[in-house]
Amino acid sequence: MKRLTVFDIAEMIDHSLLRPTLTNEEFQQGIELARKYKMATCCVAPYDVERAYKGLNGSGVLVSTVIDFPHGSNMTAAKVYEAQLAMDNGASSLDMVLAISRLVSGEYEYVEQDIHQVVECAHARDISVKVIFENCFLTKEMIVKACELTEKAGADYVKTSTGYGGGGATLADCYLMRQSTSEKVAVKAAGGIRTLDDVLAYRAIGTKMIGTRASAAILDEAEKRYKDGSLSEVDPSEVIAKINTEE
Amino acid sequence: MKRLTVFDIAEMIDHSLLRPTLTNEEFQQGIELARKYKMATCCVAPYDVERAYKGLNGSGVLVSTVIDFPHGSNMTAAKVYEAQLAMDNGASSLDMVLAISRLVSGEYEYVEQDIHQVVECAHARDISVKVIFENCFLTKEMIVKACELTEKAGADYVKTSTGYGGGGATLADCYLMRQSTSEKVAVKAAGGIRTLDDVLAYRAIGTKMIGTRASAAILDEAEKRYKDGSLSEVDPSEVIAKINTEE
Repeated sequence: MKRLTVFDIAEMIDHSLLRPTLTNEEFQQGIELARKYKMATCCVAPYDVERAYKGLNGSGVLVSTVIDFPHGSNMTAAKVYEAQLAMDNGASSLDMVLAISRLVSGEYEYVEQDIHQVVECAHARDISVKVIFENCFLTKEMIVKACELTEKAGADYVKTSTGYGGGGATLADCYLMRQSTSEKVAVKAAGGIRTLDDVLAYRAIGTKMIGTRASAAILDEAEKRYKDGSLSEVDPSEVIAKINTEE
Repeated sequence: MKRLTVFDIAEMIDHSLLRPTLTNEEFQQGIELARKYKMATCCVAPYDVERAYKGLNGSGVLVSTVIDFPHGSNMTAAKVYEAQLAMDNGASSLDMVLAISRLVSGEYEYVEQDIHQVVECAHARDISVKVIFENCFLTKEMIVKACELTEKAGADYVKTSTGYGGGGATLADCYLMRQSTSEKVAVKAAGGIRTLDDVLAYRAIGTKMIGTRASAAILDEAEKRYKDGSLSEVDPSEVIAKINTEE
């Protein structure tokens, strides 16, 4: 299998700093960690966007944030307003939660428009939008429907979970999301991803980004394997076989 | 002890319809339940305020909603904007989550201002504000500090929990909150309150409002006891003795 560099892993990681009780000290440690490993982004709470932007200045690490997190039950106008504030303060990517209640009630037009209005204001400023489904609350059919609506709404990513709904990412869900969207839409897995082997398995089935708090452990392991020559891609067919066995 | 009516209990209850996966059908059932028992309010998600307002029209039951729920980590401007939208759509009471990370980091001026700005825009329209602390994340000292900041910020209630933080109301916390605020501030308990005996115990120690999903069970039991003449207040000293034993 193809050899990987540590940066191949680091650039997949949105380092999550979303815990509602995060202290200022933990926030600073997170920023320094992201700088050290050159991760893709720090994913911070809306009121931390401005200081994350300053703290990451010159590092190449971008700031991402969350919109209507983690319930997704705000009015669309509030989601758009949150998005504007976040972009004003330096966010380069927005992880919005879709209107979960509306999705489970079959109000598809509502769900699509809700996403679309955030996408429209973000794309006007060249900012990408990831749409969080909170899969633990959804059936497989609802996940497929959410993929369809997200793509129609023009968003850039489908994302599995908030990490606060009681369940996180699964390989089976990510594989389903990859198969239910065109190549215009990328997949982000988040919630419960703790090891490099997790990351490599998600990568093998076409997952582009990983949201995790365990970034340091993952990247330390990547460095270790890189040094001993064992940091390589995983065979997708092995992961798919494992998914099929478990289903 | 003083006899109570069923309405004495019903008017304490904010019937919670906040589950992020609530279907349209469950929403309708909740509205009908609140009408039937004449509860104080239905506490609904922001995007449900308008339809709750219409559904409760003429019933005497008011609409309450949540602001920056359940993490409290939005910018103050976003909280104010959410509050304005909710009031425009018919909300009579706003349950806002305070800036938890800022509180645990000792940024008290920030916490107070964040609350105050929501209070200012709500009071301009005669709308009350309840401030949710999420006690399960806080020490006793932080709860006392949050009471002080909430009162200084001019809010109307201190509230224990969102119900989504992993821990709910406790009698000990509510007693502490009652003792840490003046009579200008009322106490609301929410999270894990399931029985009439719970409600009576909270009431005995000065808790004014209860947020619960178990409203029907609580009020059915109240009717039963009212009919057999046993619906009465509980002796506060018994509840306080129980709290002291458990601490």
